[in-house]
Amino acid sequence: MKKRYGIGVAFCCVISLGVTSPGAAHAREGMFTPEQIPGIANDLRATGLRLDPAALADLTAFPMGAVISLGGCTASFVSPKGLVVTNHHCARGSVQFNSTKENNYLENGFLAASMAEELPAAPGSRVYVTLQVDDVTERVTGGLGPALTPRERFTKIEQRRKALVAECEAEPGYRCQAASFFGGLQYKLIRRLEIRDVRIAYSPADAIGKYGGDIDNWRWPRHTGDFAFYRAYVGPDGQPADYSEDNIPYSPPHYLEVSSAGLDDGDFVMAMGYPGRTSRYARLASVRHTFDWQYPVFVDLLADWIATIEAAAPEGSEARIRHESRLAGLNNTLKNLGGQIDGARRNALVQRRAQREAELNGWIAADPHRGLLAQAIERLDALSEERAAEARRSFWYGNVLRPQLLGAAQRLYRLAHERTKPDADRESGYQERDMAMFRQRMSVIDRRFDPVVDKAEWMLFLRGYLAQAEDMRIEALDEAMGLWPEMSDEELSEKLDEYYESTVLNGRETRLALMEATPEGLNRHADPFIRLATALHETQMAREEAAKTRAGRANELNPQYMRAIINWQQSRGHAAYPDANSTLRVTYGAVMGGSPADGLLYEPFTRLEGILEKDTGEEPFNSPLAQLDRIRAGDYGGYYLDSIGSVPVNFLSDLDSTGGNSGSATLDANGKLVGLLFDGTLESVNSDWDFDPEITRTIHVDTRYMLWVMEKIDGAQALIDEMTIVR
Amino acid sequence: MKKRYGIGVAFCCVISLGVTSPGAAHAREGMFTPEQIPGIANDLRATGLRLDPAALADLTAFPMGAVISLGGCTASFVSPKGLVVTNHHCARGSVQFNSTKENNYLENGFLAASMAEELPAAPGSRVYVTLQVDDVTERVTGGLGPALTPRERFTKIEQRRKALVAECEAEPGYRCQAASFFGGLQYKLIRRLEIRDVRIAYSPADAIGKYGGDIDNWRWPRHTGDFAFYRAYVGPDGQPADYSEDNIPYSPPHYLEVSSAGLDDGDFVMAMGYPGRTSRYARLASVRHTFDWQYPVFVDLLADWIATIEAAAPEGSEARIRHESRLAGLNNTLKNLGGQIDGARRNALVQRRAQREAELNGWIAADPHRGLLAQAIERLDALSEERAAEARRSFWYGNVLRPQLLGAAQRLYRLAHERTKPDADRESGYQERDMAMFRQRMSVIDRRFDPVVDKAEWMLFLRGYLAQAEDMRIEALDEAMGLWPEMSDEELSEKLDEYYESTVLNGRETRLALMEATPEGLNRHADPFIRLATALHETQMAREEAAKTRAGRANELNPQYMRAIINWQQSRGHAAYPDANSTLRVTYGAVMGGSPADGLLYEPFTRLEGILEKDTGEEPFNSPLAQLDRIRAGDYGGYYLDSIGSVPVNFLSDLDSTGGNSGSATLDANGKLVGLLFDGTLESVNSDWDFDPEITRTIHVDTRYMLWVMEKIDGAQALIDEMTIVR
Repeated sequence: MKKRYGIGVAFCCVISLGVTSPGAAHAREGMFTPEQIPGIANDLRATGLRLDPAALADLTAFPMGAVISLGGCTASFVSPKGLVVTNHHCARGSVQFNSTKENNYLENGFLAASMAEELPAAPGSRVYVTLQVDDVTERVTGGLGPALTPRERFTKIEQRRKALVAECEAEPGYRCQAASFFGGLQYKLIRRLEIRDVRIAYSPADAIGKYGGDIDNWRWPRHTGDFAFYRAYVGPDGQPADYSEDNIPYSPPHYLEVSSAGLDDGDFVMAMGYPGRTSRYARLASVRHTFDWQYPVFVDLLADWIATIEAAAPEGSEARIRHESRLAGLNNTLKNLGGQIDGARRNALVQRRAQREAELNGWIAADPHRGLLAQAIERLDALSEERAAEARRSFWYGNVLRPQLLGAAQRLYRLAHERTKPDADRESGYQERDMAMFRQRMSVIDRRFDPVVDKAEWMLFLRGYLAQAEDMRIEALDEAMGLWPEMSDEELSEKLDEYYESTVLNGRETRLALMEATPEGLNRHADPFIRLATALHETQMAREEAAKTRAGRANELNPQYMRAIINWQQSRGHAAYPDANSTLRVTYGAVMGGSPADGLLYEPFTRLEGILEKDTGEEPFNSPLAQLDRIRAGDYGGYYLDSIGSVPVNFLSDLDSTGGNSGSATLDANGKLVGLLFDGTLESVNSDWDFDPEITRTIHVDTRYMLWVMEKIDGAQALIDEMTIVR
Repeated sequence: MKKRYGIGVAFCCVISLGVTSPGAAHAREGMFTPEQIPGIANDLRATGLRLDPAALADLTAFPMGAVISLGGCTASFVSPKGLVVTNHHCARGSVQFNSTKENNYLENGFLAASMAEELPAAPGSRVYVTLQVDDVTERVTGGLGPALTPRERFTKIEQRRKALVAECEAEPGYRCQAASFFGGLQYKLIRRLEIRDVRIAYSPADAIGKYGGDIDNWRWPRHTGDFAFYRAYVGPDGQPADYSEDNIPYSPPHYLEVSSAGLDDGDFVMAMGYPGRTSRYARLASVRHTFDWQYPVFVDLLADWIATIEAAAPEGSEARIRHESRLAGLNNTLKNLGGQIDGARRNALVQRRAQREAELNGWIAADPHRGLLAQAIERLDALSEERAAEARRSFWYGNVLRPQLLGAAQRLYRLAHERTKPDADRESGYQERDMAMFRQRMSVIDRRFDPVVDKAEWMLFLRGYLAQAEDMRIEALDEAMGLWPEMSDEELSEKLDEYYESTVLNGRETRLALMEATPEGLNRHADPFIRLATALHETQMAREEAAKTRAGRANELNPQYMRAIINWQQSRGHAAYPDANSTLRVTYGAVMGGSPADGLLYEPFTRLEGILEKDTGEEPFNSPLAQLDRIRAGDYGGYYLDSIGSVPVNFLSDLDSTGGNSGSATLDANGKLVGLLFDGTLESVNSDWDFDPEITRTIHVDTRYMLWVMEKIDGAQALIDEMTIVR
């Protein structure tokens, strides 16, 4: 295998409609919507799919009907009794929620001895089963003529989307979404069954499910058992219901069979999931802003931010324990942004985007009928520049608003205002349908709030803010807080102390009670954070107005731009796919190693023995001794793969994935579950902007390792028996 | 290529005498002395050598006669006019020595336009040409019966070695060494021509020669142009002489031809060089002490030490610039020890050593005639335990002696004492033959001395020392410095200030003048560091006496142990080779990729394009723009390797190497120069203790890259023309 990366030229965001040979050594770009499947059926067959491609287009049929969303993660039904498999990192919050010092399920793992002993998942956990998808483009955008102002256009579209959602959710038990595709060129109403009683059935210990931890995150070679099992419950009537002992397991219309034979190098593989967000059609102005300004500035801030938290919450302190997961998150973001910046440099993202835009311009200029298109794109670029300038202007102000109690105060104040309107007119996020989540967010603050750390962070952001030129500062903020650029650290510190000393928002009950407050009541409230929120309200609303006006302009221009992209690509024999938007997508390709750098090759599979190699006995390389023993004993059971001489632990593929794909069902050519998608390599993170087929690689946990752990280590035979295992 | 590492079982320190198939997928352990060549001739031929193996045994013939030592590095003659090729990192000190702000040769590289413009190498630079090696075992150890006390044995051996060296060096221009092999089982007198006029002819810029810097150090993939050219000069009479304009280029008896065709994956390759030190026969007690105590303790201290220097010499300060290379060295050691500790854990070094000793014991026990051997080994183990205990006891005291001026004071005081004896009786290091080097060491202190940093380091060591239990402390030190365990940082700091404020040893001329001082003169000297050295002298001498007594015991026991090893191995059809000792050795094997970890593969070659990938424009990834342009243009010239689709930059082999091998001539099957050995992978550093054929890989710079840079980037055509280039 001789491979170089960064040399081949990939063209972003298009797939060839032509038939390519199976196992071709380039990654398959594309996160396809189910209705795009017929258009790529030939390529699916040529790549190796043995199922009828048409089956993938039907959301209510096998296998798509078995693939569900957890909201942020993907999962699948794997038994007729509502058993759900997903990533360990998607279910870990629920394990943590049930963990105590006495019963530390994170450390020891959790396996319910019977269904009766399954534990309720963390509050707010949901299983969403996509039931129906309808094109509602006409109902959202129909009759919105060019005479509308941008603000009117924005409002109309939002009102219509809200109305569609309200109508769709009229019958209880469903959650609906009027999702935008291709930048608003298309809208689809997606109806999902919302199962509210979710329980944790089995999760391996962190030492398996999170093996390698943050060190191995985004890395290959990988040896993570990133799998866990939920079970979905409904009321005795079969309808979604809150948790109750009387509830019964949900009977899904379809579930996946699990393969114990698995894949080998080069085999066809596909994944179904809910990828969150990509920016593959972002205009050059936006790309430049992001990579030349936003990411580098944020990377610097992140480094300071992490150092600030670490200094304020010293190693070993209670505060540090409380902030471990935030620190991990910030470090994670830092690593990700570093990977994106490196990737953009390596792939010459800016130059490539400029070249693509030049080529598109060439196509437009070739036909005088496309004159309006050219104008629209010119206006879109002006808008992109404006948005970038605004993002730069409000960057430091935005950071100053980060402290948790200030955020809570702002949301409470906004809620009080929104509650004066009829529900349908309220801002999204403040409607009755959002209140459960709102309450949840207000409750959860206590878990990690620490005034010393919070204040240290606020100092950092305010110091950054005050160092900016006057046009980067916000008068209302300066005035309300009494800030001036030359103020000393002591002066600033004393000022912030007043906030933390006199606030009452650090009490959960207080915050929940304030959800019922009126604007007048809050206007009179003495809490300093509420006072500050009140003082900033007008500024915030003006900024929101401006943003909505810009969004209205985007509502007009983006569909024209995307229409141009689609037609241009069609003229070259390619089909465009929409950017990820947390809706169900299919991606397909092959099991494939890679080359992250000249001189270095990734093997497609890792082996059990790799765990022995990595193990230090210390977190995150502290495999359970029972596992080390089984590996040393060569006890491979029925999960051995000849070509690697061991049980495969994780594998690589050339699939196109991003955040939100976590937990995605990874299926073989016959639609059998062979793995769970759980990560991408660090060299791939830039693919959110610009897909590079040479280096983009997705990481999966192999079902053979999952079954091996269940059988040999955790004794989860009952769950194995409940599933349909096929060779 | 499917490979796992850490699974195969390697047996340390032996090579099979049987014929193995060429290109077998395991590394070739063994650093062979030239006279061992006949014994491995069959294997050399079977592995692919096309030269007559007998040629490698003759030091005065081609190719061995062309391989020279620089003292610490290896080099080779590559033209009849004394042109010498070695690693950039071996010649860099000389480039630095000649660099000024105006002529920054480190940054810009240096190429002499003609021989007349070649610049003198750094003071003390030498070229050593090995001329003769004679077995002098009988002359060193003959007639030393068992009745001798250990101390007497030690003295006798040292006296005889010194006498041999003195006799050998009687004629000026030679440097001799009575080197010990197999732990003193064998002694050889090595006579080397000492060329003192060494000049720098050509060195590429750091941005090529040190590309990747400390980040890539011990890493693969690698893209370092680690080559540079010296020229050796002698007096008009052909004899070694100090630098003079009248000197002429030295005509070496042999020089290497340089290949522009090079190697491909799997090809035979061998390297000749002067590996420094290995510990492959160390007893378990010593291995345990090193890996369970010494390395971990030192790793902790190193981390504190680095932090201390960084805090005392803040980023951007003059002091930091002065300490950059020391910091790099400390970080380098930290990285190396980390690699050794990881390697020992991964390979279960301690368990394997225990197993080896058990097997050797089994062989000994099998024959009642080997009873004395068993006793000797038992005594050797007791000695190893004693030495380990002593190393633990003196660890902190030893660190307290690190400050440079204290070291200088101790060496000067010792010199004054030694100078009262006849030269032949003086301690090695204090004889007349050592005075040039002694003067050099006394001079060089100024370059990096900074009292603030020096004091901060001393504080760190003293704090560590004072934290030890009383039996780990040294009474003479406590008394002389007035230390007590509970003293505060302020008290300690004030005490040290007195040293730095009143010392005169920070003056170079003072130190050099004190080389002429008498013991009485120094006893009366007021300098606080000299006072401390005087106060510690008796303790130091007592410790040295004890160490010499232990060495005398080792002189008796080690040869018996090594004889046992050799006979035991012979009984199993294997031949043992001696540990590295800075004498000329041969290692051979093949060009070969590797696997540093499950799921990851090393390709055997890196490519020019890898430089483009790594390049950030910032040190150490700041390739000259001309090089980036040539690579982008695909201007490969005559140096293209089909199988990798580019010009090879660096390559990996399975050769057995260690520090001191830097610059080693890497030859193909016909004895043509195809590369220069310059590093090993971090996974390999543990091979100094325990050779693991699965993972040990040596890194070479490819002569094709060297010639490509010379031709395409640096315009060093005259040097290319001077060499004999073969395809």
